Amino acid sequence: KRAREFGIRIGVMQPGALNAITDVRGVKVGHTTLIKGDSIRTGVTAIVPAEGNLFQQKIPAAIFVGNGFGKLAGITQVNELGNIETPIVLTNTLSVPIAMQAVAGLAMAEKGNENLRSVNAVVGETNDGYLNDIRGRHVSVTDVEAAVKTAASGKVKEGNVGAGTGTICFGFKGGIGTASRKLPASLGGYTVGVIVQSNFGGVLEIDGAPVGKVLGKFDFSDRLLNNVDGSCMIVVATDAPIDHRNLMRLAQRAMLGLGKTGGIASNGSGDYVIAFSTAEGLRIPHSGNSATQTVTLLQNDSMSPLFMAAIEATEEAIINSLFMAGGMKGRNGNSVEALPLTQVLPILQKFNRLQP
Amino acid sequence: KRAREFGIRIGVMQPGALNAITDVRGVKVGHTTLIKGDSIRTGVTAIVPAEGNLFQQKIPAAIFVGNGFGKLAGITQVNELGNIETPIVLTNTLSVPIAMQAVAGLAMAEKGNENLRSVNAVVGETNDGYLNDIRGRHVSVTDVEAAVKTAASGKVKEGNVGAGTGTICFGFKGGIGTASRKLPASLGGYTVGVIVQSNFGGVLEIDGAPVGKVLGKFDFSDRLLNNVDGSCMIVVATDAPIDHRNLMRLAQRAMLGLGKTGGIASNGSGDYVIAFSTAEGLRIPHSGNSATQTVTLLQNDSMSPLFMAAIEATEEAIINSLFMAGGMKGRNGNSVEALPLTQVLPILQKFNRLQP
Amino acid sequence: KRAREFGIRIGVMQPGALNAITDVRGVKVGHTTLIKGDSIRTGVTAIVPAEGNLFQQKIPAAIFVGNGFGKLAGITQVNELGNIETPIVLTNTLSVPIAMQAVAGLAMAEKGNENLRSVNAVVGETNDGYLNDIRGRHVSVTDVEAAVKTAASGKVKEGNVGAGTGTICFGFKGGIGTASRKLPASLGGYTVGVIVQSNFGGVLEIDGAPVGKVLGKFDFSDRLLNNVDGSCMIVVATDAPIDHRNLMRLAQRAMLGLGKTGGIASNGSGDYVIAFSTAEGLRIPHSGNSATQTVTLLQNDSMSPLFMAAIEATEEAIINSLFMAGGMKGRNGNSVEALPLTQVLPILQKFNRLQP
Amino acid sequence: KRAREFGIRIGVMQPGALNAITDVRGVKVGHTTLIKGDSIRTGVTAIVPAEGNLFQQKIPAAIFVGNGFGKLAGITQVNELGNIETPIVLTNTLSVPIAMQAVAGLAMAEKGNENLRSVNAVVGETNDGYLNDIRGRHVSVTDVEAAVKTAASGKVKEGNVGAGTGTICFGFKGGIGTASRKLPASLGGYTVGVIVQSNFGGVLEIDGAPVGKVLGKFDFSDRLLNNVDGSCMIVVATDAPIDHRNLMRLAQRAMLGLGKTGGIASNGSGDYVIAFSTAEGLRIPHSGNSATQTVTLLQNDSMSPLFMAAIEATEEAIINSLFMAGGMKGRNGNSVEALPLTQVLPILQKFNRLQP
Repeated sequence: KRAREFGIRIGVMQPGALNAITDVRGVKVGHTTLIKGDSIRTGVTAIVPAEGNLFQQKIPAAIFVGNGFGKLAGITQVNELGNIETPIVLTNTLSVPIAMQAVAGLAMAEKGNENLRSVNAVVGETNDGYLNDIRGRHVSVTDVEAAVKTAASGKVKEGNVGAGTGTICFGFKGGIGTASRKLPASLGGYTVGVIVQSNFGGVLEIDGAPVGKVLGKFDFSDRLLNNVDGSCMIVVATDAPIDHRNLMRLAQRAMLGLGKTGGIASNGSGDYVIAFSTAEGLRIPHSGNSATQTVTLLQNDSMSPLFMAAIEATEEAIINSLFMAGGMKGRNGNSVEALPLTQVLPILQKFNRLQP
Repeated sequence: KRAREFGIRIGVMQPGALNAITDVRGVKVGHTTLIKGDSIRTGVTAIVPAEGNLFQQKIPAAIFVGNGFGKLAGITQVNELGNIETPIVLTNTLSVPIAMQAVAGLAMAEKGNENLRSVNAVVGETNDGYLNDIRGRHVSVTDVEAAVKTAASGKVKEGNVGAGTGTICFGFKGGIGTASRKLPASLGGYTVGVIVQSNFGGVLEIDGAPVGKVLGKFDFSDRLLNNVDGSCMIVVATDAPIDHRNLMRLAQRAMLGLGKTGGIASNGSGDYVIAFSTAEGLRIPHSGNSATQTVTLLQNDSMSPLFMAAIEATEEAIINSLFMAGGMKGRNGNSVEALPLTQVLPILQKFNRLQP
Repeated sequence: KRAREFGIRIGVMQPGALNAITDVRGVKVGHTTLIKGDSIRTGVTAIVPAEGNLFQQKIPAAIFVGNGFGKLAGITQVNELGNIETPIVLTNTLSVPIAMQAVAGLAMAEKGNENLRSVNAVVGETNDGYLNDIRGRHVSVTDVEAAVKTAASGKVKEGNVGAGTGTICFGFKGGIGTASRKLPASLGGYTVGVIVQSNFGGVLEIDGAPVGKVLGKFDFSDRLLNNVDGSCMIVVATDAPIDHRNLMRLAQRAMLGLGKTGGIASNGSGDYVIAFSTAEGLRIPHSGNSATQTVTLLQNDSMSPLFMAAIEATEEAIINSLFMAGGMKGRNGNSVEALPLTQVLPILQKFNRLQP
Repeated sequence: KRAREFGIRIGVMQPGALNAITDVRGVKVGHTTLIKGDSIRTGVTAIVPAEGNLFQQKIPAAIFVGNGFGKLAGITQVNELGNIETPIVLTNTLSVPIAMQAVAGLAMAEKGNENLRSVNAVVGETNDGYLNDIRGRHVSVTDVEAAVKTAASGKVKEGNVGAGTGTICFGFKGGIGTASRKLPASLGGYTVGVIVQSNFGGVLEIDGAPVGKVLGKFDFSDRLLNNVDGSCMIVVATDAPIDHRNLMRLAQRAMLGLGKTGGIASNGSGDYVIAFSTAEGLRIPHSGNSATQTVTLLQNDSMSPLFMAAIEATEEAIINSLFMAGGMKGRNGNSVEALPLTQVLPILQKFNRLQP
């Protein structure tokens, strides 16, 4: 069950209908989950930001680096040109090249892109090498294509799926999580949706309750308890009409949500936030007839509610990734337990975080 | 009383002896507090990072921009050359020029600097214009000099002092706050100290307890409740031997501590983190006899405990600024109440955050 | 005489009518020149980007750091919010605070700004301490106000005026220089204008001719010949409708023009480029009635001709600053000779750079 | 023949013995050149920065973005951690993923890296799609491995080799070029070596002579003449002992060298500079026994001669790429002529740039 089903109410804003990134209209998510034999525990998650040919009709975007110890592909072009022109794919660290290969292949094969000779694949990753035989590089081009092609709107699978199949978060099984917030109509009525691939450490807090501290499960009590090559990938979608500059500001805020779960952006954790806008009228033609484009954009002064929404949705998406992930056994007999609800729920109760 | 005196225990690490930035040996803090008549509610806080002639013996430093809507002076040189060569001065927004003038004047007058013809004053600010007649620009060169010259080690005054005299935080009276963390000897035994000038908004959380939410006092419930031109200045000191690059990473982490208090780095909040290292052997001679310098630096892999320390100390410093600030009446009869302990302590009790 | 009057034709594009930043309609320039006694050789140059109340109707802008060893004020807010809200003022290094004080004062005094309690003064500087008694800080608030208030469209004074009064460039007398380029109508017909305050070193090249090399006057032949604390301030104006992101890209290109004069952005040279757009319809209201703004912007694909224009105009503006500056004697009997035309013109002739 | 063999003497500093990046001791370069049938005109160039296991003994590095419209892989980790842990590989745009795959594979297979589960491949690219069937993605893992494994010190092949096989520069055939500069002993005696993959446009200048202008061959005379999806990859090596921060500054200077050839960093040109230091004692152990490392670093004040060296070597490397590339016929019967020496040498003569 998701966090909210236990009575956890993170923040003060309202979630969207699905409490998922897919509450932002047009956003689709697909997973390929690879669980094979004793040691393959990995996968691919694709976020398709909008309908239609993304290369021909690009999407305003920005990528913020929370901690650059990671292999995310595509960042400089997104931030130079202010847009994204492919689906966003998440996978494991050593499968980034194959995922890029697949994304480029899909773009080349898409109708209308016959003359495409350059495309900027955006691929993020975290390291699932504790549970997964990551050196085996088991993700194939077909696996990536499947994640993109099966991407759908509606409910999003969370936990041990897709790129979250083999990840670890705060010493427990992490994975994919999602959440959303909807602004009141008086503030524009915009939706902010977040999806995360959680694979990082710190001292877990759930809606402010000091779960990691009470469980004695945290880094740096007197030595490095948790030495995972972690990372967190965060994707933020919104239908608010904002361009690259304000998307970058929005992306930067998502890190505060990570901080609220107890994450510390440790040295080994490559933390990135990819933000994009699906707003009508902001799509950027690859080759237009016109030298100019007319766009309607939100002013700086109206950004703050979106900032809060991104913080809340990121926090909840990470917590959802923990609640939705079961325990997992993998490579070398390594295993990671799920968030132990029998211990955690009483802690939440004790700290008064479960609402009826 | 400070937060910890009420039984609040933020984080899992130990504070230093004073739980203040001055736990980092050599760091001194001075305040000039200006409360005059009905409408002057402002001041200056100076952080002197180390002994001796700072211009001749510079200090490794970095400045991270959490949200650049502010007037902080000196950032590009600190980040280009990797060092700081003056005390750090905090004041109100419109007094930044005067503070720079004073800092430069002190540097010119210092013995040994007779040939100084260029100096990079680092001055931060937040906007105290609700309580203070900020347009009057009441801070004088003498006021700034006094803050620098009276800077001392030992206990640090908090609350409505110095640059925090007129600031507002989460709708309550904010001000100056400080805290520190000391790593266990097994992790190097380094100290991280933080001082803040708190003047920003969001939904207040105290050690994870949803104080702002319970009090119904937060931004964006359905409109902008809190329209202050805010900001938060955060100064992080450490005796760990780290250079500009890792100081920048450390500074970036401090923003997560701000996030944990419920801050959202709103559009109007200019949030900056200035980090420096006082480690022996890292001081950079203004004009050396040698083209090279030999330094002993902490490796990337050893940074994570410092990151956690910066997050915890920042969170606690902000909370201390609230606990230590009394109510204040100022310009135009405007008044801001202190954190209402009679309401807040029961909330903390209810959320089980007060330890005996 | 300006470079072009000698038959020097830098680049392949056409200059505007005045070959000055004021070819961009609405841009005004004013100077206060301070030459007093034996040792005051400094001043102020103000660039007023557009008509009207700049604080109430801000201008899209970006600031690129070529080399951050300088004291430029205002950068973080310009780059966070994407706009500029005051005139741009250039002066000497130690007069930045006074110039900020003056700019803020003017903004506060301007009609319509009665409630202004925060304003981001953009002030750049170079170090004229060889010829000028810079430690005396002789620039006054009145001097800065005079530069702003007397700013005018039309022909721009160059050489030893304003902020260029005491500067040195390639070992010769530098100063203020300006130039412009106008795109052909087929490429939009936009104008790019540049003004510089030149105070840096390297190996002078004039339109590709190796003047510094032939004269044997350059840095690093076998030691540091030229040890000035230099810098170059470059301001780029355009009427092309471009926002912060593309203005930043435009600003970055101006550094290539500096490189073409033989500049090397030496360690001690704080080189900054401030770019802004005066295009109709892009002005940003300080407090609007609407949460959104509709703007018509040039596409990325149309930027390249503007990039070339910025490079050419920057190169020519720097060369003009040298041609227009006479020799100057100043502090301590120090003197700097003007570009020695009797030597330079024959070199240009020899390298075939003078056109009839 | 290389530019210098025709009597062209770019700059004022002395080249190293080979006038190549391999003048920096330990640096090796390897090429795989793919010329097959009518339409395969591409390849791979590998720069191996130092001897030994690069993953276990990393190298200080930085990557500067001149214009981010490109697919360079590995940037965020290099800039976060300040080092590089693999060879640098250059290839065509759509072969970046395969090159990353190969680089990761080589690292995994290297003795001592049996536990490697994360590695940051640094792969740059330019787009050779005019002459090459880039959509065919003809570069294989084996091709990349061959370039790395055959990398050698000594003379470097230039022109239509490796990653330069199918590139175009200023409308002529570009390719690989290299050059170096050696500082006088009084300035440290350090060497700076540069290698480029040239594939960009502008108005060609050769040692200041306006070749493109005289030939009437340039962009933006009245329309876009040159619409190549270009780019320039620049790799800067030095044996000077400098860390990430000063390597970034050095990398930024290389763009000035590109500017001096007439390059404009056009919208479609993804221009990147990768800089690294081979200095003894700066190699960073992947997993050390010590939390700290002692290093001897050059001071900021000593950087300027290195800056000039990087600018000169970059300019000459680009010019060499043009002089060393023959004409090429490729995809769709497209052909690109070599720099037409019969026209160019007289122009250089006329502008007095050929020395006996």
